[in-house]
Amino acid sequence: MSSITDKITTILKGLFPESVSLHEPVFGGNEWDYVKQCLDTGWVSSAGKFVDRFEGQLAEFTGSEHVVATINGTAALHICLQLAGVQQDDEVLIPPLTFVATANAVKYCGGIPHFVDSNEKTLGVDPEKLESHLKEVAVIRSGVCVNKITERPIKALVVVHTFGHPVDLDPIVKICHYYKLKLVEDAAESLGSYYKGHHTGNWGILSALSFNGNKVITTGGGGAILTQDKKLAEQAKHLTTTAKVSHKWAYIHNCIAYNYRLPNINAALGCAQLEQLPQFLTEKRLLAKKYIKVFSGVEGVVSFIEPSYARSNYWMNVLLFDKECVNDLEITLKQTNDQGIMTRPAWNLLHTLPMFENCPRSGLETAESLATRLLNLPSSPILGMPYS
Amino acid sequence: MSSITDKITTILKGLFPESVSLHEPVFGGNEWDYVKQCLDTGWVSSAGKFVDRFEGQLAEFTGSEHVVATINGTAALHICLQLAGVQQDDEVLIPPLTFVATANAVKYCGGIPHFVDSNEKTLGVDPEKLESHLKEVAVIRSGVCVNKITERPIKALVVVHTFGHPVDLDPIVKICHYYKLKLVEDAAESLGSYYKGHHTGNWGILSALSFNGNKVITTGGGGAILTQDKKLAEQAKHLTTTAKVSHKWAYIHNCIAYNYRLPNINAALGCAQLEQLPQFLTEKRLLAKKYIKVFSGVEGVVSFIEPSYARSNYWMNVLLFDKECVNDLEITLKQTNDQGIMTRPAWNLLHTLPMFENCPRSGLETAESLATRLLNLPSSPILGMPYS
Repeated sequence: MSSITDKITTILKGLFPESVSLHEPVFGGNEWDYVKQCLDTGWVSSAGKFVDRFEGQLAEFTGSEHVVATINGTAALHICLQLAGVQQDDEVLIPPLTFVATANAVKYCGGIPHFVDSNEKTLGVDPEKLESHLKEVAVIRSGVCVNKITERPIKALVVVHTFGHPVDLDPIVKICHYYKLKLVEDAAESLGSYYKGHHTGNWGILSALSFNGNKVITTGGGGAILTQDKKLAEQAKHLTTTAKVSHKWAYIHNCIAYNYRLPNINAALGCAQLEQLPQFLTEKRLLAKKYIKVFSGVEGVVSFIEPSYARSNYWMNVLLFDKECVNDLEITLKQTNDQGIMTRPAWNLLHTLPMFENCPRSGLETAESLATRLLNLPSSPILGMPYS
Repeated sequence: MSSITDKITTILKGLFPESVSLHEPVFGGNEWDYVKQCLDTGWVSSAGKFVDRFEGQLAEFTGSEHVVATINGTAALHICLQLAGVQQDDEVLIPPLTFVATANAVKYCGGIPHFVDSNEKTLGVDPEKLESHLKEVAVIRSGVCVNKITERPIKALVVVHTFGHPVDLDPIVKICHYYKLKLVEDAAESLGSYYKGHHTGNWGILSALSFNGNKVITTGGGGAILTQDKKLAEQAKHLTTTAKVSHKWAYIHNCIAYNYRLPNINAALGCAQLEQLPQFLTEKRLLAKKYIKVFSGVEGVVSFIEPSYARSNYWMNVLLFDKECVNDLEITLKQTNDQGIMTRPAWNLLHTLPMFENCPRSGLETAESLATRLLNLPSSPILGMPYS
């Protein structure tokens, strides 16, 4: 038995003598009141006041001008990419260290993921590597960025604020500007995470949030699109609501669109959850602090800490194994999960999945290294409460 | 003012002195209990017992071997068509008299809607017209039905049980068999409707249900896929849950797929609603009977009655205007809606919408006639209660 594994298991068992999940929601606020209002009034579905209210609360919290609630984060990202202009055979730069939805959303638009490497300090897209890769493969022709090797347009870059940690947005925005790339933020994991004092999701022309059951707040299933652009917001609302033209009774639709609206009952849950978000964030930071402290003495692993420019939501706490200790990771996964402590490795890198293995890519050394060294720890807000 | 309009308005005002919606859900059963169980246990999202239970209840009610719950009816139909083998540039036969989702789902697969005419007695696809159209345009080449004019494969037929009234399935099944077409039933509107004693949704290789807020039962937003084929059911489950390969901790996905799972909290609502479905169906039939009686004396209109072979759920009651009285329809829509009685015309026929206007089609005389003559009446189950 690996001594690192034993140390980690002992520490986690000390913190959590009972079995513990990776991330569980807490319904300690007005959830029941709001859901009951939906049931009592009959408004559970596509019409009802909680969708508007949830969008308003999200706009206020994130500082985004416009918010469109959607059925989930995947749907939000799909619409972000469609409105960023991604079409058949366009390439979209994305990191491989992310949930599969990031690449699937590109495919829904007919696009092709083009993988770029990650940064060890942010876990997200590395601006320096991105720039040197684009220098190598990209050329601007008639105002369009083109991959010289595949001869396909490169339309957009999706950055992911991995596990809630913001990528270094300023240099990335510059690169996108130079290379005529539309920037989309996959902020599915970063509600409550700030880059240089401002909430993530406000740098891309459009950004996607997620409220899946394992996220900082949940609506059961749900997501949202953020944008500063009124016209894009209107288009997003239109595309997510079957492109129905407003009319008192007629059913007229004017383009191919989607049934991506968030039901009112799920929005009701979201309103109640958002009210508690500041508390959840406080608890999550306390938990992160606790992890940083207890693992500081364990040789061979290091707690991942938010980048210096950021205030992260620590959605999912990360323990990074030293390169020499990667063999201990699989053993640790087995031992902790066997003992009822849910831990998880990184997602299998997307460029290694069969449907994406032939997609274009830069060197992916850092992502590949991180994927073998990364362990997610139990991260529910409730675990950060002072006496939990 | 049209005298037909006045007669209809007077009759409806007599039935509904207060304002009345087109279709409202009733939450009179265990909705609160089940939703509260979700909140109390924290299981609101992708895992939880209500999804399995809802699928089981649906299988029992419909007699379908396998049921896969989805996020909505559109998502269900998308997956039905993908599993029916619809690919880029395949044609799919569909009626134009349906909600836009039927055609959108074809487009999501890269397919092309090919419109076929409706039958006056069922409001759905007319088997005789379908057959004569296929005789004219279709040929079987190497076991594949091909449109001789466009040279594209015709892969499937989607029938819609319009407003809950079953199409004549037996001859349609024969035509599909002869022309090697995969039959998919868009049963979004026909939960609780039977064809020759068996529940709709059991003739297609796959069928789609919807539980949108305006349907016979609702989950807020939700849908389901029905099939008798175990392998197709497994594929449907896989494709609707991001194609995640089962593993205790690793995140591996083996094909491009979707986040179409129904959240547990919405399934909880569905379980409670399904328990009340027999009662809703009774009330809806009483309401239909009431309408048939009160409008029997009004010259110029006729209540649409279920086909002789069918027992319909009368999801949405239909008043058909005589050809000579089509001008009265728009006036009636205005007057009834102005007076707080929600009525609705047919959907604008899909082949008239800009994104589908160049799609192939047969003659569509009956659909075009029906669309100018059809008025939907308030149809909430509660309106059929004896003393409502």
